[in-house]
Amino acid sequence: MSGEPPIIVLVRPQLGQNIGKAARAMLNFGLTEMRLVAPRDGWPNPDAGPAASGADIVLEGAKLFETTAEAIADCSLVYASTVRRRDLVMPVVGPDEMAREMRATSGRSAILFGPERSGLETEDVALASRIVTVPINPEFGSLNLAQAVILLAYEWSRGADLAQPTAKEIEPPAAMAELEGLIGQLEGALREADYFHPPERTSATRATIRTILTKPLWSSREIQALRGIIRALSTHRSSKN
Amino acid sequence: MSGEPPIIVLVRPQLGQNIGKAARAMLNFGLTEMRLVAPRDGWPNPDAGPAASGADIVLEGAKLFETTAEAIADCSLVYASTVRRRDLVMPVVGPDEMAREMRATSGRSAILFGPERSGLETEDVALASRIVTVPINPEFGSLNLAQAVILLAYEWSRGADLAQPTAKEIEPPAAMAELEGLIGQLEGALREADYFHPPERTSATRATIRTILTKPLWSSREIQALRGIIRALSTHRSSKN
Repeated sequence: MSGEPPIIVLVRPQLGQNIGKAARAMLNFGLTEMRLVAPRDGWPNPDAGPAASGADIVLEGAKLFETTAEAIADCSLVYASTVRRRDLVMPVVGPDEMAREMRATSGRSAILFGPERSGLETEDVALASRIVTVPINPEFGSLNLAQAVILLAYEWSRGADLAQPTAKEIEPPAAMAELEGLIGQLEGALREADYFHPPERTSATRATIRTILTKPLWSSREIQALRGIIRALSTHRSSKN
Repeated sequence: MSGEPPIIVLVRPQLGQNIGKAARAMLNFGLTEMRLVAPRDGWPNPDAGPAASGADIVLEGAKLFETTAEAIADCSLVYASTVRRRDLVMPVVGPDEMAREMRATSGRSAILFGPERSGLETEDVALASRIVTVPINPEFGSLNLAQAVILLAYEWSRGADLAQPTAKEIEPPAAMAELEGLIGQLEGALREADYFHPPERTSATRATIRTILTKPLWSSREIQALRGIIRALSTHRSSKN
């Protein structure tokens, strides 16, 4: 099968809290497989759970490894999340290209993240297939571990079918006949109110009104409400006449 | 010019620390304009600086407002970052569509974020042009404030290097203050016409009117024309009384 979710590999993470935050970031976008390489304070870490805010399933399933090489032994496409390294000649991709490649592969893919303070060591980066770099403000690059995880997890999920689709509109636009009804009613009310003068401007004014009312793509229900509003204004007027 | 970076509006944020984290998230992707609506613990807040990790330029420039309406008065395209609301009929877009729309507009755009614990109130959401929702794991949605900010800031920045969008509008949407003027005028005319009854339905009816008038993203010129139309209908009525 293709497009399996990537494994998130935290290499020598320092704080348990950050492991928990990374788990939370992952689960938001449907990633559940975490691997830990030699976490500084051992594993399990009591600080991880509270920071995971309920993403316990990720922490409970986290697998522990002594070396990065072991952690990615079964993966065929591995990305090192880091800035470009002058000491290594490796392909550098952006998050979107990473996500595309992951979807196209039939093997397992993984993303390596380094320790909070120092980032990935050269030896770890060298084990990867590519470097993935999030393009950030060149004058202020300050992503923490969980933020780097969430951005790459988000990018992966953008193309995923499992992600909840966002409906564009709750209600479809009304049929054109309904719109014509609204336009006709407003023009009628305006004619009664002597709005259309001078006569030579009438057709331009009518065109403007049509444009204004066509643009919104209102639903049937919205058009009904507007017709009620126009009726209220004009009926009220007539009753006072 | 088009595609100016969006303004980030934090509505009633609770912790200074989270304001700092949001500033840091913003600056990573080149966003520098922050507006604060009634922060719980006042402003400035000594906890914000340390959490900003150097993004002081954002905090120093942050502007303080008492109400959400004031904070977005000069913006013409406003997104409420929230889950879909069953109590509001509004267009819902994903982050990528939001970013495209922002790049295509020549007016200022803004994104509203609610308080950490509760999110945006219905009244705040109703002031926006659209809802923007990050599609997340339906079984585990747990984005904190800074994460929501960073994902939308990232999405905006993704297109930053692209050539200027070819999609161009003839006229940008009017500023929110102009829209408020239109809504206020129509409500006034309807009150005079005894439109709002029974009284217990008034607030729902007003919400519907607001939704209908917010959706189109009318230009200044269109809003002026509509105000003329409402004036014609109501002035005419008064003159006959």
